[in-house]
Amino acid sequence: MAITYELIKTCKQTGARLGKVHTPHGSFDTPMFMPVGTLATVKTMSPEELERMGAPIILSNTYHLWLRPGEDIVKEAGGLHKFMNWNGSILTDSGGFQVFSLSDLRKIEEEGVHFRNHISGEKLFLSPEKAMQIQNDLGADIMMAFDECPPYPAEHEYMKKSVERTSRWAERCLEGHKRPNDQGLFGIVQGGEYEDLRRQSAMDLTSMDFPGYAVGGLSVGEPKDVMNRVLEFTTPLLPSEKPRYLMGVGSPDSLIDGSIRGIDMFDCVLPTRIARNGTCMTSTGRLVIRNAKFARDFRPIDENCDCYTCRNYSRAYIRHLVKANETFGFRLTTYHNLYFLLNLMGQVREAIREDRLGDFRDQFFEQYGFNKPNAKNF
Amino acid sequence: MAITYELIKTCKQTGARLGKVHTPHGSFDTPMFMPVGTLATVKTMSPEELERMGAPIILSNTYHLWLRPGEDIVKEAGGLHKFMNWNGSILTDSGGFQVFSLSDLRKIEEEGVHFRNHISGEKLFLSPEKAMQIQNDLGADIMMAFDECPPYPAEHEYMKKSVERTSRWAERCLEGHKRPNDQGLFGIVQGGEYEDLRRQSAMDLTSMDFPGYAVGGLSVGEPKDVMNRVLEFTTPLLPSEKPRYLMGVGSPDSLIDGSIRGIDMFDCVLPTRIARNGTCMTSTGRLVIRNAKFARDFRPIDENCDCYTCRNYSRAYIRHLVKANETFGFRLTTYHNLYFLLNLMGQVREAIREDRLGDFRDQFFEQYGFNKPNAKNF
Repeated sequence: MAITYELIKTCKQTGARLGKVHTPHGSFDTPMFMPVGTLATVKTMSPEELERMGAPIILSNTYHLWLRPGEDIVKEAGGLHKFMNWNGSILTDSGGFQVFSLSDLRKIEEEGVHFRNHISGEKLFLSPEKAMQIQNDLGADIMMAFDECPPYPAEHEYMKKSVERTSRWAERCLEGHKRPNDQGLFGIVQGGEYEDLRRQSAMDLTSMDFPGYAVGGLSVGEPKDVMNRVLEFTTPLLPSEKPRYLMGVGSPDSLIDGSIRGIDMFDCVLPTRIARNGTCMTSTGRLVIRNAKFARDFRPIDENCDCYTCRNYSRAYIRHLVKANETFGFRLTTYHNLYFLLNLMGQVREAIREDRLGDFRDQFFEQYGFNKPNAKNF
Repeated sequence: MAITYELIKTCKQTGARLGKVHTPHGSFDTPMFMPVGTLATVKTMSPEELERMGAPIILSNTYHLWLRPGEDIVKEAGGLHKFMNWNGSILTDSGGFQVFSLSDLRKIEEEGVHFRNHISGEKLFLSPEKAMQIQNDLGADIMMAFDECPPYPAEHEYMKKSVERTSRWAERCLEGHKRPNDQGLFGIVQGGEYEDLRRQSAMDLTSMDFPGYAVGGLSVGEPKDVMNRVLEFTTPLLPSEKPRYLMGVGSPDSLIDGSIRGIDMFDCVLPTRIARNGTCMTSTGRLVIRNAKFARDFRPIDENCDCYTCRNYSRAYIRHLVKANETFGFRLTTYHNLYFLLNLMGQVREAIREDRLGDFRDQFFEQYGFNKPNAKNF
């Protein structure tokens, strides 16, 4: 078994899980946030910086690597770890989400999805078998099943058909996966906001015995309380001895709320994407570094942060760099935001260990401003 | 005296100088190449990376920092070193070159130069006194006198007037410089390709006793043999106990040829600029990483290089990043090119120490391809 999970303890105050995931490239503590390295690079960062900030696992995108540089080149390089010089763990998604969100003219059939390459316009076809072949060639520690991720809101009737097809595709993924001893394949529970469909999807997938399960189809436009409610009735359907991954979620509040609902792993482009626009996450809410008021502010981005950026650079300097479109400015904001979330997850784990994640949530939300009626969420 | 120079030895084969320059922020061996950090950042690099690659001194641009973020902000931050978190030495130019090359509608008067800001269009005025005030506020270890740098070719008549004005401006610079104990001010010898004017300029300036001298007005479009000839009759006019700086020169061949003609310091945007276009300097000539032939080439950029980039990443990976416009790709090519030139200067110093810089030149030019009739120079 390439991937195993160890449950260390459950928070008495919230039910959140403290655990450890073991992969062929090392183990990591959970709950954990995974930085996204779409094209075999976490934008602006070096592998050493990711290691230094405490990221044990990163995510990379199958769809993007399939198109550029092509999974055959990555395979020839000796796999994704060697290609990008990253010795930690890697998770690759299935490509399904990008096919549905980025491509034009897609056509979903039982066999798979026809669509056009979002860069060249070329006609392509992605199927469960193809998604497995690409991911086997990339060689990540954790692979994801090829699923359909319908947008929110979707009709119950459509969602039911989609869930059933996703289950049939999951079976084909298990069959198509050629390296189960080296790479662990996670199943993805879909079903939108419908409890009966989430139950059906979870039953189908848990019967197939994947080494881990993701909750998909959230953070696709639904309100936060819908996400929380779906997690509340979905995670109890998943086996406690396996890791649970909430896909595409990375706002500080949702990381805490997801952990409270039994999620172990998260990923999102949010911290890196907003960093490249000069927006920083801080312990007292977000900070838009381009703002004129920071021109002569020689304090760090976050006075409560001990990251490389905050130990060495001022708001005034970072503002200058970002306004001048200097790469180093985006390196500094990216480093800070990723560190902020990784550090937040460390605090979440500490709070679980001490059975006080509920208290931690209240305090964090208050300080961050999530409780204010006009709170700017990320 | 903020800046002193120590002549260690002269190459018996070529006359090149091995030396050391002492500054308030440490000493560095010469001949030395200085990476350019225009806007208080060497594009894409961190200060730690510059230190790791062996850069003891960087250059920053007065004109650019005056406009963004403004020298008052840098001063308030505690000076350029503190603002950008760089503990090595810094040299700032005078802003003159940018006024002449970037701005529109400039008007040169005895008092100074009227011009328009190349970003906002705002009317500005730069004079010897203003250039000194800005550079005193920035606080670099080495400052440059405010000079006129006429384009190539310029008429003898015009150049003579310009040289005379530059000498008068140099006197005003010495007078305007308020921190001679903390910052060393270098004079700049002008005169284009005219031996009599270079002699006049050198005489004027050496009579003023600057702690170092630059040769300006080269690498402005003239052929390489003109540059070499000018250096041949100009450097002997400069005092041997002071450092000599050839401004704006950074192609590998010119670094060697300049060293042979008695130059101690060089700077140029070339290595960083071409890196951001994916062009790499290697021991066997330049390498355009976007080229399709590197798609499956898993060798390092330069098989004879031991830099961070070449120890860890393949041409195939870097090509992928550069083609996808990923920042990390430009970090890798920039690091490599700067390391290449810094390492080249180390080889030049070693060759001077062993009285074989002429042989080294021949060998390097042969291997690099500079001897070929259709050699692509940088």
